[in-house]
Order: sequence, then structure tokens, then C-alpha cells
Amino acid sequence: MKAEIMGIGTELLMGELTDTNSSWIASRLPALGIELQWVSIIGDDLPRLTEAFKRGMERSDIIFSTGGLGPTQDDLTREAVAAAFGETPTIQQEVVDNLERYFAARGTPMPQHNIKQANLIPSARFVPNRNGTAPGWWAERDGKIVICLPGPPGENQSMWEEQVEPQLAELVNDEVTITRNIKTMGLSEGAVDEIISEFFGVDNPYLGIYSKADGIHLRVIARARDSQSAQKMIMPVEQAIHDRLGEYIWGYDDETPEQAAGKSLLEKGLSVAVMEMCTGGALTNSITDGPDSMSYFKGGNVAYDAAALEACGVPAEVMEKHGVVSQQTANAMADTVRRNLNADLGVAVTGVPGPGEFEGKPLGLAYISVTNGEKTREMEMRLPPRRVTIKRRVPNQALIELRRLVEETG
Amino acid sequence: MKAEIMGIGTELLMGELTDTNSSWIASRLPALGIELQWVSIIGDDLPRLTEAFKRGMERSDIIFSTGGLGPTQDDLTREAVAAAFGETPTIQQEVVDNLERYFAARGTPMPQHNIKQANLIPSARFVPNRNGTAPGWWAERDGKIVICLPGPPGENQSMWEEQVEPQLAELVNDEVTITRNIKTMGLSEGAVDEIISEFFGVDNPYLGIYSKADGIHLRVIARARDSQSAQKMIMPVEQAIHDRLGEYIWGYDDETPEQAAGKSLLEKGLSVAVMEMCTGGALTNSITDGPDSMSYFKGGNVAYDAAALEACGVPAEVMEKHGVVSQQTANAMADTVRRNLNADLGVAVTGVPGPGEFEGKPLGLAYISVTNGEKTREMEMRLPPRRVTIKRRVPNQALIELRRLVEETG
Repeated sequence: MKAEIMGIGTELLMGELTDTNSSWIASRLPALGIELQWVSIIGDDLPRLTEAFKRGMERSDIIFSTGGLGPTQDDLTREAVAAAFGETPTIQQEVVDNLERYFAARGTPMPQHNIKQANLIPSARFVPNRNGTAPGWWAERDGKIVICLPGPPGENQSMWEEQVEPQLAELVNDEVTITRNIKTMGLSEGAVDEIISEFFGVDNPYLGIYSKADGIHLRVIARARDSQSAQKMIMPVEQAIHDRLGEYIWGYDDETPEQAAGKSLLEKGLSVAVMEMCTGGALTNSITDGPDSMSYFKGGNVAYDAAALEACGVPAEVMEKHGVVSQQTANAMADTVRRNLNADLGVAVTGVPGPGEFEGKPLGLAYISVTNGEKTREMEMRLPPRRVTIKRRVPNQALIELRRLVEETG
Repeated sequence: MKAEIMGIGTELLMGELTDTNSSWIASRLPALGIELQWVSIIGDDLPRLTEAFKRGMERSDIIFSTGGLGPTQDDLTREAVAAAFGETPTIQQEVVDNLERYFAARGTPMPQHNIKQANLIPSARFVPNRNGTAPGWWAERDGKIVICLPGPPGENQSMWEEQVEPQLAELVNDEVTITRNIKTMGLSEGAVDEIISEFFGVDNPYLGIYSKADGIHLRVIARARDSQSAQKMIMPVEQAIHDRLGEYIWGYDDETPEQAAGKSLLEKGLSVAVMEMCTGGALTNSITDGPDSMSYFKGGNVAYDAAALEACGVPAEVMEKHGVVSQQTANAMADTVRRNLNADLGVAVTGVPGPGEFEGKPLGLAYISVTNGEKTREMEMRLPPRRVTIKRRVPNQALIELRRLVEETG
């Protein structure tokens, strides 16, 4: 089954907004056995949108679109699908009633413009939207399927998971694709590539290599008649990666460093507290992204200078002797916050926050410390002198170190 | 001048990675007078990539590509451009030398695979990359331009700003496009649409409306022979938006809530300290995204329960009487952190952190407080019960409230 995805909205073509929907939908298709062939971005222009849907219905079996279902005059997806199908939309009273209830619950009357969201053509049915006013459309004719979802990810992702994906799974009966992501940190892309060189260039199982902010990822993709056979094809590649890169592997599949660390903390029943300097809250923010973080996160302090660190209990003499940006201060920070907040582990980062030098040390220098009171993991990092890189890569490395120490903690 | 953008990489088509490069480049084109007509995503497949470059050279004047310039066997952009041009790449020794120096400075030998990054065809020249090993290509023939940049934004954005954009600006001599973004918070998209209804549907100046995590944005786009004329076309629309929506406007153009707040703090020479509960570091992390944040950010505390808040100095009796999730506790938090860290202003958020209820209060309930010691701005928010929404929208609202209070502070 061949598919295409259209991201709709002039704001996407003007670069006002990044189309994250297409990649999100793309990531759901392999497991359904749906082959994605085209991704395109189209502006809010009725003739061009209509043309795109017509062409899509010629070359693809299924079209997914996101965006253009809002209440404003710019929102033209419904009109374009109607034109491509050659059908006339009519207002559905029950949807008007729903919209009026939605706005009444928020204490405001329904803006008249919203009524266009109640339009439907004979070949389509609504995909209800419990997080917004725009219902989706599922249209079918002559064996072709067009599924239109609203633009906000907070709306279309739950619609996809609860309504679209289950129905697609019933329709599709082709071969199964299974993927396995293996995430490493500590070697360069070129080095990883060389170590497992002979697995590249094979079509099935396919091995891909990707350089990310949290290290080098390896992705094994196998296609087969059933998942067991696909799994069997993946195994030898995964085994080789394990044997040769084991010490660098920190996670699998969709796992983020914060999820890997959180999972280990939960499994061991341990808690953590954070003190951070150069990362300005990014580390704490990552840790609390986990839905269960309330169970293991004890609290955090964010400081930018010696005075604020001292107010958090970091001994002034350590900072005076070694500098705020030093391994010794990182260790003192981790130890202090662990004891102050009564946590099993303390994790701390200190470094040059920018824009320029600090204590004569260059932007990009950072120290990580993780302690459980007995053992301490230390690390010095030297990164490109860009704030955004530092705020992304230092927390990732700190979380990977945290996970390693949790695994070593009784 | 008609342009197209190609995002290259199977990982983009598999949904492993979101293509943020295309929208970033797209956002730079209007001001250069370059009209973007196509955006597409293409996998790491030599025949399909070659075909895409050939088709691009037929239908567009200029092609931008990102990705596929790395050292691995998957990276095929150079090969595809060479095939589309019908030219043979050869190794450039000076680039090999540079690569060897790059790796030597990092204390490792150059992996052999990296040598392909030194390839060049006669119609192309290198675009140097000071943040990575992959130089870009600028290829020209028969009046068509192909510009290939590496995939990591941390590499291609500085290459664009320092090398590509200045050269493009010299080439392009068409009409000028000027855009003005006006950002509001506090009204729904439908309500804003109704209030300035008559400006929509006009081609030039064009008015677009976009619903974002930091409110409803309005974008006015005017095209004219020179920037002064374009500016003149934007003015009456901007004036009307001001007159009718003034109290809801919090920022302009690329400004984020943290930048708007940071700018106000810098202008007034004031400092801020943060205490946050349900947002788990997201507010502090936003504030410290600003490159000048060291000048106004005094520090922050992140807590998840009453004990941790008490350790930060929040009076237990306020939390016992009103609950941790209450306006009174938010006010006490803002006041406490302001005084503890010796800041001019304190900003605090408390709410239900999830996954479930807290103190019998629903997920999605949050309170904001901003104080300068004399005046205090308070706000209650009721959001959809999703952690990611709460961590994005509560900090945005808190920053907008912070900016408002800074503006009112002597």
C-alpha cells in the first residue's frame, strides 16, 4: 500500500512553522506495512491544494494530510478534498451542536466562522477530535483513501492513535516491517560506521546510522511476512552491534536519555536531585519530562554564579580554590543537592554559561558529576561554543552518566 | 527567482527525524525575494536523488538541499548532484588535509570513510563548514544553482548566514517581501479572526493567522519594488491590529515570550528569580535560553512537593492552609525566591504536575504569580490535562505576565 503525506499551510512554506506532523505520521507507517513514497508541503491555495489531492489520488493508495481544518478563511483542506472528489459539502447539524457546546463550556459564544468545521461531503465521515474544534475527515472512493487531520500535534496525535491507526491496521494486510534502534554515546559517526562496516549496504535487513544530539543511533529495519521472521532477521545484526559497541550503548528504540535514566531509577526505587549551572534548567526540565518523574525527582536548583551556588549550600572554599567551573565544584554540587534534598543520587553540571569566557575558561567547557554518596562518576566535556549545543548535549551526557551510576547502585 | 528545497535522508521518510531545515531555510527566502515553490523529502537512494536533482534543475532556478553529506555509505547527495550534472568527482587534497587536522585536534586519526567528504565536481565549489567535517557544495551550470548543505542545523545555519545568504543577496534583484508578525495571547483564533475579518483574503498585503503555543499570531506580508513601499502597505493593517487588539499583543516578529521578557528586563536593568513546581524546570530553561540571561537571571528552584518547597523557604502554613496548588502558594513562592536570591522580581508557577490529581485538584490546573515586591500579577490557568501542554503553555503565559510587570516597574 503506497502512501503520501501532505503538510498543508502557507505558514509551513513561509518557514513560520516546522512541519513535525509529517515525520510523526511517517514514523507510524512502517509497522503498519504502509510504504511512504512522497512527503510534500503545500500552501493555503485552493487550486494548488485541489490539484495536489487529485494527483495524490492518482499515484497513491492513501493520502494523509494535516492542517487547513481550522475555522479561518485560510483553512481550505475541506474545500480542496470536496473539489477533488467533485462533491458538495453540507453542514451537519450534530457537529454544529457539538461546537456550540464546546464554546459554551468555555463560557464564550461560538464564533460564526467555526460553522465551516461542520461541513462534510457524501464520501467522507468525521474523525472526532476531543482536544479541539476541528474534526478530521476520512474520505474513500474507488479504493483510494484520504484522511485529513487538523494541524496541532496535540489534536492529531490522539486522533491517529485512537481512531486512524486501529482502522488502518484492519485494512492493511501486507508484509510487516520491524525496526530496532540502538543508541550509543562516546564514539564518532565515522568510527561507529567503520566498526560495523559490513552490515551497511544490505537492503533487508537495512542498517542506517544517524548522528544525533544524544549520540550515534543505529537503526535496523527488516521486512518479512510476519513479525517473528522479521525479528529473526534483525537478531544477528543486533548481536554484532552489542558485541562490538556494548559499552557505548545507552538505550533502545524511542528511548530518550531522560527516559532511560528514569526507567532505571524507577526499577531500582531510587530518587535523584539536580543542581545545574551552565545548562540553566535544561537538565531539570529533561528529567521532569518523564510522566513518572514525580516518583523519583526530588527537586533542583539552577544557579549562574558563585553567590547563588553558595545560597544552595555549595561550600565557598571549593569554588574559591578550584573555580566555579571545575570538576571539584561539580562534585560538591552533586553531593550538596543529594544531601539537601534527601535524595539517593545527586547529579550536577557546571560550566561556562556564555556568552563569553568565565574565570578565563572557554565557552563549551563543562563538568558533570553524579554521586550516590559512595561512588562518583566524573566527566569533562569540551563542546562547540554555542549555548544551544551546550544546553542540549551536556544534559544528555549527564543523564547517560546518571543511568550508568543507577545501574551500579544497589 | 523560483526555488525548491529538498530534505535528504531515509531517516526523514521513516519519521526518525523531523526535517526542521526546510522550514528554517524557507523562513529566510521571502526577504531575499526568492519564491519557494516546492518542498520535498527524499530518501538515501541514488537513482531517486539523481532524478530529484534533475527535475529540480528543470522546474526551479535554485535548489537547496540539506543532508546526505556525511562520511557514511548512506550519504549520497554529492554522488547524486555529480550524476545530475554528468560530472565526475575528484578528491581535493587540501580538504583531506583539513579533515586530518580536524581529527588530529580531537586526538583521533581520521576514519577512512571521511575521505569522501573531500570530493568535488568541476561545476561546484566548497562551502566551508567550521562546525563539522562536511563541507557544503555550491554548484552552478546553465543559470541554475544547486546549494547542498549538511543536515545538522548547528552546521548549516551558520554556513547559511555567513556564506550562502550574503552571496544570494547579490544575485537576486527582484521585488522585496517584507513580513511583520504580531503576537497576541488571551483570545481564541476564531475571535481574533472575527475582530480583523476584513483584512483576510487580500493577496497583497496578505494577512495570515496562526495558532501557536504562545498565543495567536498574525502575519502581514507585503511585496513591492522596494522595502519602503512594502512597509507602507503593511502599516494600515498593523495599525488596525494595534487599535483593536492592543491589550493582547505581547511581541513581534521572531520574538519568543522569553526574549520579550528578557528584553524588557535588560532595558530596565532589572533581575528575576524563579520558583516552579508543575513545570519542572521548563520556565527556568526558557528564561536561560536568552544569550544575555546571565545579566538578569538570578537563579531558580524546581520542586515537586511541599517538603521541597519548604526547603526553598516557602512558608509551610500557607501551603497547609490553601494547598500547594493555590494562588496563595504561588504568591508566597514568587515572594520567597525574589527575596532569597536578592532579585528585583520573582516569578513562580504551581500546579498539578501529573500524571493524576494532586490535592484533589485536576491535572491542567496551574497558578502563576509575578511580583516586584509592591505589585503582584496573579493568574489561574485551566489547560488540557497533558504534561507536554502544561510544560509549554504555563511558562509562556508566565513569561508574558513577567514582561507585563517589568513594563510597569519603575
